[in-house]
Amino acid sequence: MDRPFIFINSAMSADGKISTWQRKQVRISGAIDFDRVDRLRCGSDAIMVGIGTVLADDPSLTVKSVQRKIERKEKGFDENPVRVIIDSQARTPIDADIFKKGEGRRIVVVSSSAPSENVKALRRKAMVIIAGESRVDLPDAMEQLYLLGINRLMVEGGATLNWAMLSSGLVDEIYTFVGNVIIGGQVAPTLVDGEGFKDTSTLPLELISAEKIEQGILLKWKVLNFQ
Amino acid sequence: MDRPFIFINSAMSADGKISTWQRKQVRISGAIDFDRVDRLRCGSDAIMVGIGTVLADDPSLTVKSVQRKIERKEKGFDENPVRVIIDSQARTPIDADIFKKGEGRRIVVVSSSAPSENVKALRRKAMVIIAGESRVDLPDAMEQLYLLGINRLMVEGGATLNWAMLSSGLVDEIYTFVGNVIIGGQVAPTLVDGEGFKDTSTLPLELISAEKIEQGILLKWKVLNFQ
Repeated sequence: MDRPFIFINSAMSADGKISTWQRKQVRISGAIDFDRVDRLRCGSDAIMVGIGTVLADDPSLTVKSVQRKIERKEKGFDENPVRVIIDSQARTPIDADIFKKGEGRRIVVVSSSAPSENVKALRRKAMVIIAGESRVDLPDAMEQLYLLGINRLMVEGGATLNWAMLSSGLVDEIYTFVGNVIIGGQVAPTLVDGEGFKDTSTLPLELISAEKIEQGILLKWKVLNFQ
Repeated sequence: MDRPFIFINSAMSADGKISTWQRKQVRISGAIDFDRVDRLRCGSDAIMVGIGTVLADDPSLTVKSVQRKIERKEKGFDENPVRVIIDSQARTPIDADIFKKGEGRRIVVVSSSAPSENVKALRRKAMVIIAGESRVDLPDAMEQLYLLGINRLMVEGGATLNWAMLSSGLVDEIYTFVGNVIIGGQVAPTLVDGEGFKDTSTLPLELISAEKIEQGILLKWKVLNFQ
C-alpha cells in the first residue's frame, strides 16, 4: 500500500498531557516552538486532525508566517497545506474555523454510514472522501490522500486519532515538545489515548534526537512499526 | 513546616504512561536505568509509594546491588532505606513483599478513620503513623517523617500519590526516564493522575538536565512550587 510519509507533532506536559481534563488548552510551549510548528506546517502537503480536536479547539491550522505564505505562493502552492479532518459521522460544523480561515483546500474523510444530509452540507465547504463503513478506514484514507498528491502528512492530534493512526501502523515519526509544566488528571487527554496496548505489548520507537528549546525539550522519535 | 527533600522518580512511555490500562507493568527502561534507580534508592533515607501501587504491583522496593547494601551497612544503616506506604484505610496486605523482603524499617501512614483491626494487624509488621482524618494529611505526614530523621525521600508512585504530593506543593524534583515505547490508552495510568489542574492552571517546572540513556532519555525537572 502506498501512503504519505506521516508524522505526529504535539506539545505535551512533562506528565504526557495535551490539555487539562476540561480540554482547556494551556500554554505548554513558547514562541520558538510555535515557529517550529509553523515551519513544519509550511513544509507539509497536508495537516490532519480528528473530529474531537475540531469540536474541542476549533483550530484553523493555517500557516501563520507571512513570509512562509509568500514562499508557498511563489512555488505555486496555496498559502496553506491541504487541511484534512477525520470525521466518521460528518459532524464537522460548517462554520468551523478550518473552513473559514485562510486559503487552501479542505478534505473531510467520512465513513459510508455518515448521515447524508451532513455529507451534503460539508461538500459545499470541502472535498469529501469516503473510507470505511461505520468508522473511517484509515489505511484506505491514507492511500486516497496519497493518490491526491499528498506525500508528506502532518498529524496534529488529538489523542484518539493519534492512537488510531499509531495502532494501525500508519505513523513514521513522532515529534513531541515536552513543556516545563505538570497538568495532571486521570481523565486529561494524553499524547496517545484510545484503547491502548494490551498485556505487555507496546509500540517500539527509536530516539532520533533530543533538543532543548526554551524551557522544554523537543523529542523526535522514529516509529519502529511491526512488519 | 520542616519536611524532607522529596523527589519523584519514574519511568514512563513516550506518551506519559507508567503502565498499560490493565495496570500491567511493561518494560520501559533497561539495565542502566535500573541501576540508576537502585543508586537513587541506596542514597535515600526513605522510599515511599501509595497503596494503589502496593495492591497493583506488590513491589519490594529493596536495594538490589550487593555492593550498595554492604556500603549501607558499613555506614551503620540498614541494607534498605525506610519503606513508607501512604494508606489512608490501612489496606496494605500483611503478606506484602515490602514486609517480607529485605531488612530495614517499614512505616505505614494511615488516617484516623482507618479500621482499627487493620491498623492493629499492620502494627505487627511496621510502624504505623496517623495523619489526617478521612484521608492521609500529606503535609502532616511529611513533617512526621522528617522528625523521624528522614531527610531525603524518594517517591516511586503511583500516579495518584504523585498527584497528591505535587498538588500539595510537597515535591522538589521529578526525574522521569522517558522510554522508547508508546503504550496508549485513555485509562492507562500516567505519571500524574488524580483530579488534575483546572482551567488554565498548571504546576511550573524548570528543566535541570536531559541525558540520553540507552534507548530513552532521562529528564530531571525542578518543581517551581507556588510560594
